[in-house]
Amino acid sequence: MFEVQSHLTGTWVRGKREHPLFDPSSEERVGTAWCDPPLEGVLEAARAAGPGLRARSFGERGAMLDALSKTLRNHREELIDVSIRATGSTRADAKFDIDGGIGTMAYYAGIGSKLGNKRSLVEPGEALTKDPRFYGMHLWVTRPGVALHINAFNFPAWNLAEKLSVAILAGVPVISKPATSTSILAHRMAQIIVESGVLPQNAFQFLVGKADGILEALGPQDHIVFTGSASTGAKLRQTSAVVHRSTRLNIEADSLNSAWLLPEVAPGSEVYQAFMRDVIKEITQKAGQKCTATRRIFIHRSIIDTLQSELIEGLEGVRIGHPSLEEVHVGPLATRDQVLEFHRGVEALIGSGARLVFGDPKKVHPIGVPEGKGYFVPIILLRADNPKQSDAVHQIEVFGPCATLCPYDSIEEGGELICKGDGSLVASIYGEERESLRRALDAIAPFHGRMLVVNPKVVGKTISPGTVLPSCIHGGPGRAGGGEELGGERALRFYMQRVALQGDRAFLEQWEEGQ
Amino acid sequence: MFEVQSHLTGTWVRGKREHPLFDPSSEERVGTAWCDPPLEGVLEAARAAGPGLRARSFGERGAMLDALSKTLRNHREELIDVSIRATGSTRADAKFDIDGGIGTMAYYAGIGSKLGNKRSLVEPGEALTKDPRFYGMHLWVTRPGVALHINAFNFPAWNLAEKLSVAILAGVPVISKPATSTSILAHRMAQIIVESGVLPQNAFQFLVGKADGILEALGPQDHIVFTGSASTGAKLRQTSAVVHRSTRLNIEADSLNSAWLLPEVAPGSEVYQAFMRDVIKEITQKAGQKCTATRRIFIHRSIIDTLQSELIEGLEGVRIGHPSLEEVHVGPLATRDQVLEFHRGVEALIGSGARLVFGDPKKVHPIGVPEGKGYFVPIILLRADNPKQSDAVHQIEVFGPCATLCPYDSIEEGGELICKGDGSLVASIYGEERESLRRALDAIAPFHGRMLVVNPKVVGKTISPGTVLPSCIHGGPGRAGGGEELGGERALRFYMQRVALQGDRAFLEQWEEGQ
Repeated sequence: MFEVQSHLTGTWVRGKREHPLFDPSSEERVGTAWCDPPLEGVLEAARAAGPGLRARSFGERGAMLDALSKTLRNHREELIDVSIRATGSTRADAKFDIDGGIGTMAYYAGIGSKLGNKRSLVEPGEALTKDPRFYGMHLWVTRPGVALHINAFNFPAWNLAEKLSVAILAGVPVISKPATSTSILAHRMAQIIVESGVLPQNAFQFLVGKADGILEALGPQDHIVFTGSASTGAKLRQTSAVVHRSTRLNIEADSLNSAWLLPEVAPGSEVYQAFMRDVIKEITQKAGQKCTATRRIFIHRSIIDTLQSELIEGLEGVRIGHPSLEEVHVGPLATRDQVLEFHRGVEALIGSGARLVFGDPKKVHPIGVPEGKGYFVPIILLRADNPKQSDAVHQIEVFGPCATLCPYDSIEEGGELICKGDGSLVASIYGEERESLRRALDAIAPFHGRMLVVNPKVVGKTISPGTVLPSCIHGGPGRAGGGEELGGERALRFYMQRVALQGDRAFLEQWEEGQ
Repeated sequence: MFEVQSHLTGTWVRGKREHPLFDPSSEERVGTAWCDPPLEGVLEAARAAGPGLRARSFGERGAMLDALSKTLRNHREELIDVSIRATGSTRADAKFDIDGGIGTMAYYAGIGSKLGNKRSLVEPGEALTKDPRFYGMHLWVTRPGVALHINAFNFPAWNLAEKLSVAILAGVPVISKPATSTSILAHRMAQIIVESGVLPQNAFQFLVGKADGILEALGPQDHIVFTGSASTGAKLRQTSAVVHRSTRLNIEADSLNSAWLLPEVAPGSEVYQAFMRDVIKEITQKAGQKCTATRRIFIHRSIIDTLQSELIEGLEGVRIGHPSLEEVHVGPLATRDQVLEFHRGVEALIGSGARLVFGDPKKVHPIGVPEGKGYFVPIILLRADNPKQSDAVHQIEVFGPCATLCPYDSIEEGGELICKGDGSLVASIYGEERESLRRALDAIAPFHGRMLVVNPKVVGKTISPGTVLPSCIHGGPGRAGGGEELGGERALRFYMQRVALQGDRAFLEQWEEGQ
């Protein structure tokens, strides 16, 4: 049995609230999360870790990340096993989460090494008056606060590691709160991090359960980074720290991501096939439990029936079952609640403008699992014949293997439909002609944090749209929360203050050099 | 009599709520603000102005700003007269507001000209995988929303112009809401802008009175830019648009700005004299009604008595009176409410750790004004002998000619005291030795949006710390609202979405070129 505890102020602490944890594939009890430990001294401990961390250079902090990522890599097989058992991930999905986390950490180690001895980031300056000596420049300096990371259940390893990497590289101590439901894997990660001794004392704390006591005490130099539902995001926006003390808050929330096949792409072409591959992957990978998964599929009306048949054919080949089996592509959802939520979402879509074209919500027969056991759901493909009239299709994110086909008649209409999502993390656009690609990008760019563009020149060379690379920003406007994570060096700025410096050029440049 | 109306959906509209306006120097009624006009169609009109504005390049939008700034400059003398009569500004203070606004507009016209034919901003890209063709880059594109500008009473001309300049250059239509109390000057500005015909229809609307109807209807691509009190800022943060729809919000609020004389600066030295000049200017300019005015003055304990005497001597030479008189340095506050607020603030400070060392709150004898008339307040200098024990000194912003002297014993202690302000717009640091300047900057940088550093190399060449240059960001963390305005091109990004593009390098670069 896994015993999930918190690591606070230098020791492992067992909270009083017992939260039972189950293997999503068998529904067997596999452990307990001991939630809501006492929080006395936690914030103070994090604050005390600040000066030491900030005194180090980016290069030194990057070296810590490098050491950490190597330590985690040494535990990779064990982590994958934990992930399969405790989160219901297939081996491929477990690797996606764990290798993604370790890789992001190694990437930020590299950014640190590149930034070297510096502790601040500088922007090009300029003379402020006619006298060249009176100079202005903008410098980013690390804020002397802490970071509260509130992670999502679907990527317990990646979410912990990517958030931690950025904060540590920026020089900010972290209190990392996993989603309780998948905390077994996060807890094992935390154990490895703590046992490695790489990070300075209390630069990393691990809090299982409620963080309200910390949230209420955050101040103007502190940070909250949240991944999760829009409703929890809205609550965080209304906390006294954010409203009255300008505590920085980054939100990554709901997102109705789109895959868009442009009208000129003919069935059977290379771009068409790439589209089909990506769509199937995005519906099924991690059992659709990805904030970046494709939820809406936009197809020109003239070929939507053809494509639908082919897509269904492809989906029919996808095997749902026990995630430990090699032949299985899709494992269970993470919890029973997620299953209920999935069915509620599918019903809501069917009740408001979408119809079922593949899968039966009531029927799922996972391979290698006793009948009726496990948090399995079927793959569901819907079709909204009049997506202009249905708001639900653009607003309800079904967090599982489910997507909705939407026909469109012109690029302009396709763009308008996609924008009805009110802001998404990612859109992928598949086209062949420069002009139609251009119009498509123009139409939807400001509604997205990221756009993958597949044309004949890169077909077969691209990553699938749901893959988050550390070098590109991750976040999106509106419904997606309006935040930004990752994006290489860009991400560090969330933890830094931009300050305009005005004064003697020679002095300022020298000071900056010493930073 | 001035009749202040709104300009909405292409026509001047008179709201139903009558708000009387007075000459702050004489308390004579000078006009009426007709508040709370019907808001039907206002947001739609702004939205309809978007596509035309966004279709233009930065260069074309910059040319509009250039034409507007020239038109406003042609009305400069008239605007100055209005400012003196309707806001109680001296001629010098009126120029600070009006020339500042026109100058900022001309500055952004220049940025537009520099950006030329482009409509987006690009960041350097990189290959995403081993194949150099699969490329990643980050592009900033204008968000297809509108901007609601909520301006402060103290800079009716500058605040309107600087916010408008940035939004228009970014390609975003504006609904500009002046503070009602000083709306006469803002209204005259709006008239000139509207009559010039420079901006496309409804790219600029002017709303006098409540904006609740607009606020409630803002969406995920819209923007609120607010300058004013922390309490109104907190309310804005809790609006449904911001909480539930990720409407972007920039806040510039309370700020307890500091002037810091470092221990090595000897009385009588050049740096010392520059400090004295700046402090007197910051206490008295605009009668202290500047968000960037110095509120806290940090002096090494060994010379604070000497400095206090000299400062008092300087303040004794400052003449309060009717702002139309040439010999007057300090005019009245803008409203009776501000006078009451000023006295409440001074009392609160005196009641919690500060003592009066110059000025008598009960006595003010303005030159050229009938006894007892006008919204005049005396210049008040306070001293907090134990500033570590007094929170009020670091938290209560008295918005008038009032500042508090604070002794400190070491640079570290001085830094800690300054940071007790919990985030400010600006700090000015006056020193002679590189090492002590370095320590001072290190201690307070992340708590500020801007720092002016005066050393012997630039003494006499610097601007005073309260002057906001368009090339440097304006804003500050924590209590100051956590926002950023201005800062040259940087400011445009508030109205733009950063989108990560992944795809064929040649295609992406070509698309970006066409943007």
